[in-house]
Amino acid sequence: MKYQEIFAEYFPFWNNLSASERDFLCQSTTEEHFEKEQSVHDNLGCSGLYIVKKGRLRLYMLSEDGKEITLYRLMAGDICMLSASCVVQSITFDVFVDAEEPSDCYCISGPAFASVSDRVPEVKIFALEKAVDRFSDVMWIMQQIVFMSMDKRLAIFLLDEMAATGSDAITMTHEQIARHLGTAREVVSRMLKHMAADGGIEVTRKCINITDKKKLRDIAK
Amino acid sequence: MKYQEIFAEYFPFWNNLSASERDFLCQSTTEEHFEKEQSVHDNLGCSGLYIVKKGRLRLYMLSEDGKEITLYRLMAGDICMLSASCVVQSITFDVFVDAEEPSDCYCISGPAFASVSDRVPEVKIFALEKAVDRFSDVMWIMQQIVFMSMDKRLAIFLLDEMAATGSDAITMTHEQIARHLGTAREVVSRMLKHMAADGGIEVTRKCINITDKKKLRDIAK
Repeated sequence: MKYQEIFAEYFPFWNNLSASERDFLCQSTTEEHFEKEQSVHDNLGCSGLYIVKKGRLRLYMLSEDGKEITLYRLMAGDICMLSASCVVQSITFDVFVDAEEPSDCYCISGPAFASVSDRVPEVKIFALEKAVDRFSDVMWIMQQIVFMSMDKRLAIFLLDEMAATGSDAITMTHEQIARHLGTAREVVSRMLKHMAADGGIEVTRKCINITDKKKLRDIAK
Repeated sequence: MKYQEIFAEYFPFWNNLSASERDFLCQSTTEEHFEKEQSVHDNLGCSGLYIVKKGRLRLYMLSEDGKEITLYRLMAGDICMLSASCVVQSITFDVFVDAEEPSDCYCISGPAFASVSDRVPEVKIFALEKAVDRFSDVMWIMQQIVFMSMDKRLAIFLLDEMAATGSDAITMTHEQIARHLGTAREVVSRMLKHMAADGGIEVTRKCINITDKKKLRDIAK
């Protein structure tokens, strides 16, 4: 059956499931394509468990007045568990997920995965561990927000972005970067100007070129 | 054996453990007393799993330059799992735990609990669920930090403190409140002065009296 081989790679518990459980999960799976900036998951509902096949998703918090802060990104091969709140019921907070690039995902129905995880402890443990992994990511972001100056956070963001895309040219607007960091565009523009004057980056209208990684790393340190 | 009855209350899995596993956990337990402000857990090491019998613990993050932010409190009956990083290995961040009041705790050795949780899936699931529960608490704090103004956060803090202690008089210094919120004492003093002028609270040297809960709730809303 379709997906069997793929899931065997992603799930360490796959071969310990019964054939009927494996079939059930495969039948509860769809392939979904998301355009750039399309919403993948947008409320407390149980959208299901996403496996990113291609592209990049962004998980973020959103305030009532539209302010955002990016918690982490999901790249090809990553599994998004926080969008499946019916699997990990102790998750009682809202997160939002968008596609940052055109993305292809496998989506396993939340209730289907939950019903298997309720019967098979190994599956439950897998789901909970995936959630706790992200707890560590979120704590790192929180540490940045609480304890670091904005220029340090911006330098870390640019270096992470460079690592994620494999390119020295970051094609994001100041507005987009500001949304990731939960701050105002003006703040980002001002700091980019300073960094450019310092020789670490070059700023054009829609693109930031990292010209001196070491300088950025010094700020980030 | 000592602790058997107590643990049967705290752990839904207790009666499914073998007699030897139950004995092993009881033998790996100590009772510990902490004075007010004494450190309970202070680094990435595996201090063990604490059950608060009496008193109050505070879990917080600490920056390199000594800045703090309180993530949540543990009251009588609560279980502290984040201090047992050998049980939940995907926890890779540092948290610190202090006693806020003279406190008595049961402490189960981390490696002992981990060895049982590695053998018994139900125990592993319990530990992971406790950790994920706290993920939700931390996200709520993060939402406050990122999206709320400091006066709103202070009002929420005072109302929570009132609920936790059951008293209208909050006997904390401005410095202590500032540390909870990860801000400067001056900021807290200025805001308390505004709130007092507004008639919601009365401020004395070492104590804040909440005189009008509704006013505070309006700020917090």
